[in-house]
Amino acid sequence: MTTTHFDLAIIGTGSGNSLVTPDFDGKRVAVIEEGTFGGTCLNVGCIPTKMFVYASDVADHVREAARYGVDATLDGVRWRDIRDRIFGRIDPISEGGKDYRVNGPNTTAFLGHATFVGPRELVVEVDGRHETVTADQIVVAAGARPVIPQLIQESGVPFHTSDTVMRIDELPRSMVILGGGFISAEMAHVFSALGVDVRIVTRGPAMLRVEDAEISERFTQVAQRQWEVHLSATIEDVKGDESGVTLTLPDGTTVEGETLLVATGRRPNTDRLGLEAAGIATHTDGRIVVDEFGRTAVDGVWALGDISSLHQLKHVANHEARVVAHNLVHPDDLRAFDHRFVPAAVFSHPQVASVGLTEQQAREAGHDVTTKTQAYGDVAYGWAMEDTTGICKLVADRATGELLGAHLLGPMASSLIQPAIQAMSFGLRVHEMARGQYWIHPALAEVLENALLGLEVPGQE
Amino acid sequence: MTTTHFDLAIIGTGSGNSLVTPDFDGKRVAVIEEGTFGGTCLNVGCIPTKMFVYASDVADHVREAARYGVDATLDGVRWRDIRDRIFGRIDPISEGGKDYRVNGPNTTAFLGHATFVGPRELVVEVDGRHETVTADQIVVAAGARPVIPQLIQESGVPFHTSDTVMRIDELPRSMVILGGGFISAEMAHVFSALGVDVRIVTRGPAMLRVEDAEISERFTQVAQRQWEVHLSATIEDVKGDESGVTLTLPDGTTVEGETLLVATGRRPNTDRLGLEAAGIATHTDGRIVVDEFGRTAVDGVWALGDISSLHQLKHVANHEARVVAHNLVHPDDLRAFDHRFVPAAVFSHPQVASVGLTEQQAREAGHDVTTKTQAYGDVAYGWAMEDTTGICKLVADRATGELLGAHLLGPMASSLIQPAIQAMSFGLRVHEMARGQYWIHPALAEVLENALLGLEVPGQE
Repeated sequence: MTTTHFDLAIIGTGSGNSLVTPDFDGKRVAVIEEGTFGGTCLNVGCIPTKMFVYASDVADHVREAARYGVDATLDGVRWRDIRDRIFGRIDPISEGGKDYRVNGPNTTAFLGHATFVGPRELVVEVDGRHETVTADQIVVAAGARPVIPQLIQESGVPFHTSDTVMRIDELPRSMVILGGGFISAEMAHVFSALGVDVRIVTRGPAMLRVEDAEISERFTQVAQRQWEVHLSATIEDVKGDESGVTLTLPDGTTVEGETLLVATGRRPNTDRLGLEAAGIATHTDGRIVVDEFGRTAVDGVWALGDISSLHQLKHVANHEARVVAHNLVHPDDLRAFDHRFVPAAVFSHPQVASVGLTEQQAREAGHDVTTKTQAYGDVAYGWAMEDTTGICKLVADRATGELLGAHLLGPMASSLIQPAIQAMSFGLRVHEMARGQYWIHPALAEVLENALLGLEVPGQE
Repeated sequence: MTTTHFDLAIIGTGSGNSLVTPDFDGKRVAVIEEGTFGGTCLNVGCIPTKMFVYASDVADHVREAARYGVDATLDGVRWRDIRDRIFGRIDPISEGGKDYRVNGPNTTAFLGHATFVGPRELVVEVDGRHETVTADQIVVAAGARPVIPQLIQESGVPFHTSDTVMRIDELPRSMVILGGGFISAEMAHVFSALGVDVRIVTRGPAMLRVEDAEISERFTQVAQRQWEVHLSATIEDVKGDESGVTLTLPDGTTVEGETLLVATGRRPNTDRLGLEAAGIATHTDGRIVVDEFGRTAVDGVWALGDISSLHQLKHVANHEARVVAHNLVHPDDLRAFDHRFVPAAVFSHPQVASVGLTEQQAREAGHDVTTKTQAYGDVAYGWAMEDTTGICKLVADRATGELLGAHLLGPMASSLIQPAIQAMSFGLRVHEMARGQYWIHPALAEVLENALLGLEVPGQE
């Protein structure tokens, strides 16, 4: 077993890959990857899902065209063309990233699984051989993976996760999606819009339960009009084979589908890293414990992204990677993570986006809360869209005029929310934001303007 | 001739209509309107155009669906259904507004044309009768109207303007649009997407010439792929009748269309108001001269909106109306118009939105200019959209990091620009804006984030 010492070793090539900054020119960097280069976002997350979502949005536009006086027929969906267009663009990026680390300057790629055997010592299994990697500093950025409920595991039924379902060869006639969170919501949209009969089974009493209650409730209502949704549903029994799967609920209801997609959450990849050998502590949910600088309990070992962050979001992992990249080479000038106003979006039908506190969280935090829920359909561009479901709900402090939370459901929510994120991040008060800038009439952003104007805060007339 | 005295007389019911605030409860207000209640925006401007534009966007989505692996056929467009859906929604609002002013509390409606006969004295012609209206204060908010070139006027050919073209009974097979500004750009999109063969004839060497040169050039290129566009084209001759119109250009080229739409700009409605009798001054372009508080040269007479503003934009008129509404009742605490960062959008295909200085204006103003043009197609959501033409161009001061201008061309430009408007309005510097907030990945707003990161300003790494 060879031992090689590095200045820096990075486990994981998602956000971890961006740590190889010019600061490490001329230094020795080990890049360790046991899966596909580029991590979750590029290969099985944000990027392909949004490409599928957009194709599905287009299919929905065609279906809904008649509402606007435009008659159109959806002739068909070319699944393999969609799939191959998307992965034909993504896979070469992953391959190029790998080549660059394998053959590029000052990095050594270890294409295998890493296990800690000491505080800054790893054993990497590459093609059956074991190599020892030691480093002055190690960054753990090994991400997360889908959780599979024990009942499904033990049943032996075939199933997909978001890691695999986007690469199937043929669309099934029907799909059972287990789970009611954002992956379920996005995949339900993707596959139903492309013609698959979608049935959702979720333990929760609503979908998207991490959202503000009004958003979660509204989303669930719209979901129930589009898909067969089984709420508060535990699973008593699972049976099936390659031809289809049947889930049985406690009341005897059976839910059948040609394909089963398990979307019941993701867990950090901490369980196979030998963290205990290094003395790296984890939370009860499996995340590595880090301080605000990204430091683990072990000197010289850092962690970032889905393996340690409360936020399993690429924009957070990118931020954490920038902070850690700085901290690795500036031990006397450490920067801290900024997790104050972390937005998130769900690219379903409809889209959902949120930042800050829900109404309930704001009340629990002791704020004198004022809220306004503005319908998309009551601003001019929403009229033009004939929108009937979109809302922008804002939560503010009545006394100070501080914007505490923004929660949007509807077209373009993921971009419309940006001025609210910006206002919260820079302490702009509600009335200043509403009236201290122009809002283009009649752009869709007026939904945010009007929501602001509906809040009972200082300065409003 | 009866004479009635009022506390306030308002000429025009667009933004002027919003001046009847609770401050005037119990006072006597005259509301004078010679045309359709509600003004340009509601009846012939922002609102109906965007409703038509959205239907046209839907038709384009259907046409372009195959690019995404979704096969669709555009079976047809029901013009009258579109038209009647739109005006079936708008016309009752205009009617309701009129009823409220005719029958509502403390307003007297004069449905006729007003002419100044003295500083605060008007004669209004209503159904052939003349009534004299005097008032302590008068607000002139009588808007603007389409300019018709003399050659067209004198030719006697039938033509439409944006006032009439949206209400036609049948779509023509072809339409000649005279002009290359925003009305031309929007109407070309509306009618071409609905199946009309569009030919644009404009004097200018490009379309949308008030935009940054790069935006104007890009828009013109895309326009030329969609429409027959004649640039730098003066008109030598016009002939035609109800069956069609033929324009002859200096080089002998003829441009024919079943319908002629004149979209060569709008001029303020100052020429028929007898302003000279009141002593109200106008600029050479016909706009009423007002100070920053909205006051004309005549004590007690105010003006706002398209009749006096440099910006013929509803969001500006709304702002000016709010300022004047305050100033009317707070003579000792006057507020000023804020025209610093006025954005504007063109809802064409593609959309265009801009705020602040163009690159050329920034250079002429003496700034050490840095610019970045970010392609939509190089951010993740732009990939998903397979966008090939969208750009976000930012203009900043290299020394101070001040954002001087933002210019977007592409889907949702009118809303994506809002964080830039907000940053400029509140003095947020480029690097703070780029890195001091989260940008949801992979939302379309990343095109703005990446443009910010491409500027060479203090703080960027």
